Amino acid sequence: MTEPLRLGIAGLGTVGVGVVRILRRNAEMIAARAGRPVEIVAVSARERARDRGVALTGYDWEDDAVALARRDDIDVYVELMGGSDGPAKASVEAALDSGKDVVTANKALLAIHGLDLAGRAEAAGRTIRFEAAVAGGIPVMKALTEGLAGNEITRIMGVMNGTCNYILTRMESAGLPYEAVFEEANALGYLEADPTLDVGGIDAAHKLTLLAAVGFGARVPFEAVQIEGIERVSIEDIEAAARMGYRVKLLGVAQMTGRGLEARMSPCLVPANSPLGELDGATNMVVLEGDAVGQIVLQGAGAGEGPTASAVLSDIVDLARGLRVPTYGAPTKSLGELRTAAAASPAPYYLRMRLEDRPGALARIATALGECGVSIDRMRQTGHDDISAPVLIVTHKASAADLQAALEAFKSTGVLIGEPVALRIEDV
Amino acid sequence: MTEPLRLGIAGLGTVGVGVVRILRRNAEMIAARAGRPVEIVAVSARERARDRGVALTGYDWEDDAVALARRDDIDVYVELMGGSDGPAKASVEAALDSGKDVVTANKALLAIHGLDLAGRAEAAGRTIRFEAAVAGGIPVMKALTEGLAGNEITRIMGVMNGTCNYILTRMESAGLPYEAVFEEANALGYLEADPTLDVGGIDAAHKLTLLAAVGFGARVPFEAVQIEGIERVSIEDIEAAARMGYRVKLLGVAQMTGRGLEARMSPCLVPANSPLGELDGATNMVVLEGDAVGQIVLQGAGAGEGPTASAVLSDIVDLARGLRVPTYGAPTKSLGELRTAAAASPAPYYLRMRLEDRPGALARIATALGECGVSIDRMRQTGHDDISAPVLIVTHKASAADLQAALEAFKSTGVLIGEPVALRIEDV
Repeated sequence: MTEPLRLGIAGLGTVGVGVVRILRRNAEMIAARAGRPVEIVAVSARERARDRGVALTGYDWEDDAVALARRDDIDVYVELMGGSDGPAKASVEAALDSGKDVVTANKALLAIHGLDLAGRAEAAGRTIRFEAAVAGGIPVMKALTEGLAGNEITRIMGVMNGTCNYILTRMESAGLPYEAVFEEANALGYLEADPTLDVGGIDAAHKLTLLAAVGFGARVPFEAVQIEGIERVSIEDIEAAARMGYRVKLLGVAQMTGRGLEARMSPCLVPANSPLGELDGATNMVVLEGDAVGQIVLQGAGAGEGPTASAVLSDIVDLARGLRVPTYGAPTKSLGELRTAAAASPAPYYLRMRLEDRPGALARIATALGECGVSIDRMRQTGHDDISAPVLIVTHKASAADLQAALEAFKSTGVLIGEPVALRIEDV
Repeated sequence: MTEPLRLGIAGLGTVGVGVVRILRRNAEMIAARAGRPVEIVAVSARERARDRGVALTGYDWEDDAVALARRDDIDVYVELMGGSDGPAKASVEAALDSGKDVVTANKALLAIHGLDLAGRAEAAGRTIRFEAAVAGGIPVMKALTEGLAGNEITRIMGVMNGTCNYILTRMESAGLPYEAVFEEANALGYLEADPTLDVGGIDAAHKLTLLAAVGFGARVPFEAVQIEGIERVSIEDIEAAARMGYRVKLLGVAQMTGRGLEARMSPCLVPANSPLGELDGATNMVVLEGDAVGQIVLQGAGAGEGPTASAVLSDIVDLARGLRVPTYGAPTKSLGELRTAAAASPAPYYLRMRLEDRPGALARIATALGECGVSIDRMRQTGHDDISAPVLIVTHKASAADLQAALEAFKSTGVLIGEPVALRIEDV
C-alpha cells in the first residue's frame, strides 16, 4: 500500500493550522510510520484571505465544507470547525455518506449526535475517529479502545477542562476569589467564546460522555451526565480543603454500579497526595480502571495547537495504516442500552457552613446529621467573630439522599447562617 | 471478518495463565470489540501436569514450543516463556517463518535480537507486537507507536522496574539500608531468579532499548544503554536528597542530542514534586516528549498477572482487528543507524562526601571543583563528629568529563575520607 492517503481539512483555526504544520514538518517520518505518504488535497475555512502563518499553496480551496467532504479525491475528511450542529454536522454526514472516513476534534458534535453518526459510518463501512476530542494530546481514546481492549472497564475519572483546573489551582496559589481569576483567565484568552462551556462543566461533560460510551460499550446520552460547574467554588472552600489534605477539582467520574451507570462532572475534593490532587494548572489527567489492568493514569496537555494536532495526526496515521476501529470501539448494535443510576453511590462529604455563635449551635447541627443517618468523621470550628462561627465537617460515607435530607434539616435548627456548602469527596 | 483469530500460547506462568483467564472471562466483550472471536487452539509449557488454577481443557497441548509455533491451525503465536535465547527465540523464529504474527512479553529477547526478528517478520509479511514487554499494563508502546505517530520524539524517560522503585521508596519510608530492604523484597518474592536483572538495572535497560528504538526510529543496540544499578544507593543519599527536595529513582533516559543518542539507566535525583518524584512503590511511570504533543505522562502497574495479561490482550485484539503495525513502528529499512553520544549532556550533580574535620578542608574541595570548571549551586555541611564532616554539594550544570575530573582532583586534596558519591540530577 503505497498510494497516498488523501485528506480534506475543514477548519483552519488553531488546530487545523497545527495539523497542516505537522504534516509539512514531519512528512517523511509520518510516511515511514504510516507505510504511505499522507497528503492534504483540499482545505476549507470561513475566511480565505486570512493570514494563518502557514502556506496553503498546493491545496485546493473549498468555500463550502460539505462540498469538500463530498470530493471524490479525498479518502479522509478532517473536521476541525467545531459546533454540535450546522456545517460541522452536515459535512460529517456528507463525508460518511460519500464513503469517507472522518477524523474530528468535535466533542460537542459527538456527545450529542455521535450514536447517529456512528450508525451512518457503519452503514457506509467507514468510521469516525476522535482522539483530539478528549483530553487534547493525551492518547486516551486509543488507550481505552485498544490499549485496554481486554478489560472490562470499571471506572473512568478525569480532569479534562484545563481552564477550570487553571482557575482552581490559581485561586489556591494566589489566594484569589473565583471572580478575580475568572477575569484573569478571560483576559488571557483561556475561555471559550461562551465561558459556560468551560466553567459550567459542559465541555468536560461532553468528553466524559464519549469516554463512558466507549469504556462501557453503551449508548450514553449526554443528558445522563449530572453536571455542576465551578462557579460556586469559593476560595474559602479551597483553603479549608487544603488544610484538611484535599484539593478541589472539577472531576468527571463515570462508573458502573449494580444500580446502573453513574456519570457526573462536578467540583469534588480529592486527596492532595493523589495523582489527581497533585495536578496543577491547565494540564489534563484521565484515570482508567479495568478488571485486569487495575488503574492507569494518563497526563498531558489538554488543549493547544501542538497537542490537539498531535491527536488528530494519530487518527490519520491509524487510517493510513489501514486500522478502522468502529467509532465506539465496537459496532453500534453491540452497544447496550444503559440504565442510569438514580443517585450517586455513597461517599464522604465535605460540609462548610456558618452558625450563629451561641451555645448549642454545633450540637444542633450534629444532631440533625445523626438523625438523617450521616455520621461525622471530623469536625472543626475555625474561629468566630462574635456573630457567626465557621464550621467544617467531613462526614463518613453517606448516601446523596441522606446528605440532602441533612442539609434540609439544618434549616430548621435555627442556627444556620446562609447556605451550607457540600462537596463530594471522591475516592480516587 | 467473523472467522475467529486462533492463538497458540507458549508459557503458562503468571502471565500466560492471566491471558487464558481474561480470554475466558471477557470472551464475549472481546469478540464485540475485535469484530471476531478470539480462540485459544493450543498451549505449551514445561510441566503439563501442574495445577495452574485454570482449566486447560479444550486446548491442544504441545510439549515443544517450536512445534506449537509451526502449527497450521494458529494465526498468532503468543510467546510468554521468557529468556533471550533458547526455546523463546527458536519458537518465535519458527512462528514468523511459518507465517504467524507474534505477540510476546519478552523484553530480553527483543532488546537483544529484536532487529533480526523484525526483519524476519517483514520478510514473512508479519509483525511482532510486544506491549507487555515494556511497563506492564501501561499501553506505552501503543502511545509511542500510534498515539504520538505524528511527533518527532525528543525524549523518553521512565521508572520501569517496580522492584527497584519499591526498594528505593521503602528505604526512604522506613529509613532502612539497601541490604535490609533487598532481603525483604527477596522474601516477598519480588525479585527475579537472578536479582541482578532487577537491581542491576538490566531489565529496565531492556525496556529502554525498545522504547528508544521505536521512539527514535533507529537501530538501538542494547549495548548503547549505559547501565548502573541501585546496589550502591545508600539511605544517607536518599535522606540527604529528600532534605534538598529530591528523590532518588532508577531512571531511564533516552534522548536525541546534536551529538547522537544518549541512553542511560541509572540512579538519579529528580524533583520530589515532579510526577516521577511522586511515584511510590512498585508502580511504573513513562514520560514521552514529542515536538507537537509536549510531555505525556503514563502511570500504572508494571508487572503482575492482570496488568501484563491486559497488555498481551491489547496486542491480540489489534491483530484480530487487522492492525499490523511493523515491529518497530516503521519498516526496518527506514530505521537509522544511530550515533551514540560519547558522553552524557551536562546536568547538575549531587555530591556527598566526608572530609577530615580541619580548617580549610571545604575550601580545598571547592577549589578543586572550580579548577575543573564545576560551579557550586548549594553546599551544606551537616554536622561533624570531630573526625570527619559530611558535606553535601549540588552543582550547577556540569559536563560528565568536568565532573569526573573534579572527583579525581578531590583525591589529591588530602582531606577526603572514603569515596565521594555523585548522582546526576535529571531535569524532568
